[in-house]
Amino acid sequence: MASWVEVPQGCDFSLANLPYGVFSHNSNNNNNNSSNRTSTEPRIGTAIGEYVLDLKGLAREGMLAELEFNTTTLEAPNLNEYAALGRAVHRRVRAFLQEILKADTALGLQLRDHADRRRRLLVPLSDVTMHLPMAIGGYTDFFVGIYHADNCARIFRPGQPRNPNYTNLPVAYSGRASSIVVSGTSFHRPYGQYALDGQPTFAPSRKLDFEVEFGAFIAQGNAFGEPIDVQQAEDHIFGFVLLNDWSSRDVQRWEAQPLGPFNGKSFCTTISPWIVTPDALEPYKTEPVKTGTDVLSYLAEGRQQTVYDIPIDVSFIWPRIEEIGCLLEATEDGQTPRELHAVTGASESLQPSSILRRYLEDGDEVEFRASIDVSHAANTRGMSGKKTRHV
Amino acid sequence: MASWVEVPQGCDFSLANLPYGVFSHNSNNNNNNSSNRTSTEPRIGTAIGEYVLDLKGLAREGMLAELEFNTTTLEAPNLNEYAALGRAVHRRVRAFLQEILKADTALGLQLRDHADRRRRLLVPLSDVTMHLPMAIGGYTDFFVGIYHADNCARIFRPGQPRNPNYTNLPVAYSGRASSIVVSGTSFHRPYGQYALDGQPTFAPSRKLDFEVEFGAFIAQGNAFGEPIDVQQAEDHIFGFVLLNDWSSRDVQRWEAQPLGPFNGKSFCTTISPWIVTPDALEPYKTEPVKTGTDVLSYLAEGRQQTVYDIPIDVSFIWPRIEEIGCLLEATEDGQTPRELHAVTGASESLQPSSILRRYLEDGDEVEFRASIDVSHAANTRGMSGKKTRHV
Repeated sequence: MASWVEVPQGCDFSLANLPYGVFSHNSNNNNNNSSNRTSTEPRIGTAIGEYVLDLKGLAREGMLAELEFNTTTLEAPNLNEYAALGRAVHRRVRAFLQEILKADTALGLQLRDHADRRRRLLVPLSDVTMHLPMAIGGYTDFFVGIYHADNCARIFRPGQPRNPNYTNLPVAYSGRASSIVVSGTSFHRPYGQYALDGQPTFAPSRKLDFEVEFGAFIAQGNAFGEPIDVQQAEDHIFGFVLLNDWSSRDVQRWEAQPLGPFNGKSFCTTISPWIVTPDALEPYKTEPVKTGTDVLSYLAEGRQQTVYDIPIDVSFIWPRIEEIGCLLEATEDGQTPRELHAVTGASESLQPSSILRRYLEDGDEVEFRASIDVSHAANTRGMSGKKTRHV
Repeated sequence: MASWVEVPQGCDFSLANLPYGVFSHNSNNNNNNSSNRTSTEPRIGTAIGEYVLDLKGLAREGMLAELEFNTTTLEAPNLNEYAALGRAVHRRVRAFLQEILKADTALGLQLRDHADRRRRLLVPLSDVTMHLPMAIGGYTDFFVGIYHADNCARIFRPGQPRNPNYTNLPVAYSGRASSIVVSGTSFHRPYGQYALDGQPTFAPSRKLDFEVEFGAFIAQGNAFGEPIDVQQAEDHIFGFVLLNDWSSRDVQRWEAQPLGPFNGKSFCTTISPWIVTPDALEPYKTEPVKTGTDVLSYLAEGRQQTVYDIPIDVSFIWPRIEEIGCLLEATEDGQTPRELHAVTGASESLQPSSILRRYLEDGDEVEFRASIDVSHAANTRGMSGKKTRHV
């Protein structure tokens, strides 16, 4: 399945992906052009090759009319209303977008061979700024991964076993929705209170960490007090992003009993800008790790393949480093420095080197990247997300 | 300070209070009247005696023009924009409202003696429905009250002392903003997972509790990464409500380690509809309970009177019961039933009686009431809030 829009080798944005995002034109481009290309308002698009296809523009030009859904949802400054339309609509739109971007289809010619329209609707990724794709009313962070849970128990509560609830229910806490930012947003190293040599101290965190997570956007809320059946739960997911749950381990350790993490986790949470749909990730479904516990029926999904198998690379600056989920585990809470392969230097003169880290240092950038081009589907790459920070 | 609007004995809405709320006209009233009295859209008002003064109407009729602030903020369906204007504006408006409602002022005559205007702008409380006063983007629940903290430690973690962080920093968790409802909203007894005879079980909660809290609405957010100095913190509070942090103690106990309370607290949180301003509560400021620990300077307010002394009554159905903050503490987690004075029966034939409770039962209603009419200010009543539930 090839597109008439060039998808370079190694590019994540093939016809099999088609993620949703919210972009704006960088204001210094095309400023001698009075078309909507110069609008700096956030608008909805999808990514193909090295371009954004402007879905607001596509809707406005009437090209989606045959799909029989409320296309004004694509003219909004975020994806909330469109997400709430549900998976049946999203599947129709996905099929339509694949058709219009596929080589040699009658529909595709309506975009490919109309130079003005193509210029209006296909915008180089290098000319846009990405924004938070949805307005986020709430944020729940789940304690997923039994090895991660065991490591955290060992480090934070030595000698105490994993809590018995862990394999019986999804352990989670409410996070701070208002400090979720889009990839590329820098932040200051947080100040906070923690115990230093046994004394409560207010100072910049000394144990700044990242945490690799997978974020799901819920398409539509349930009514107050009305539960969603676990068999229908998946249909409520609009799509997925990579999520960096930046953590201050010294603040977290001091504050988190008895009510859980708060300031140690709420200063910044970064997500990737492109929401990858469940339909794009369908080929990567697999069975979850067995925990040895059968969950109660209200949590039991009636199928085997309930998780995605997607490798996520973590890089400092650029290149791949080891598969670690956070420094807390990789360095035993900073006790054992870890050698990380990194590229250092200004961008013109990058040098591969090794760096030692216990926790993050000022100026470090961290990138997560999930890229799927394996045997499941030829020429398919799933998800791309980049997270950076400067301290 | 008397108003030309009658304020009956025992009424909380005197000239010294003037809380803000969002109301709508009940649609079955005045439906043969085409004025905006029949609008069922939520609108901003203040309470005086047994009436709501329609502040949107006051703004639209130009009566606030002399105050030199953006009066369109009072035409919104919630108080967020108005709250963000800051305390200086709120003080000017408070002084103006006292003047227009005070007996025998020139300004007051412009409302009192204009029958049509008075009918438009003063709406009987019995003809309105109250709504959530603000759009709530985030909700932080603080673990306030050293006796409460000690009791919870004793009940939830017998043999372990209060955590050392407690007297050094404000211990808190992020709550679920989307399940905050206004007083009078009924809810179903929540289902949840908890340990019953040592076995994980999914069933209706058997330990449903209330928790008396005082809620503060923040007037305006800070910019990402920019802290608010503790000396300025109070200026960021728009006002206060009573808050019922409904809790499912069996769910909470099973789930809350290590990440804190989640489903045990997130099914419903009730607030009173009227936001009482800091200016109205100024006379009730006092010194906090000493904990024996000096907080670090970044948390130390440069004044003595940093808390409010406001008695809060808790009632089942109607009458006052003992001063208890929640049943967890009052019944030792349900071990010792507590005799509560209640009024039972249908509203026409209410009978005072005693009821025994370990935790809440289906159909129970709980009311919190904070009422201040003490020596600080003659004829002043501070805050009124009513919370009810049906299970």
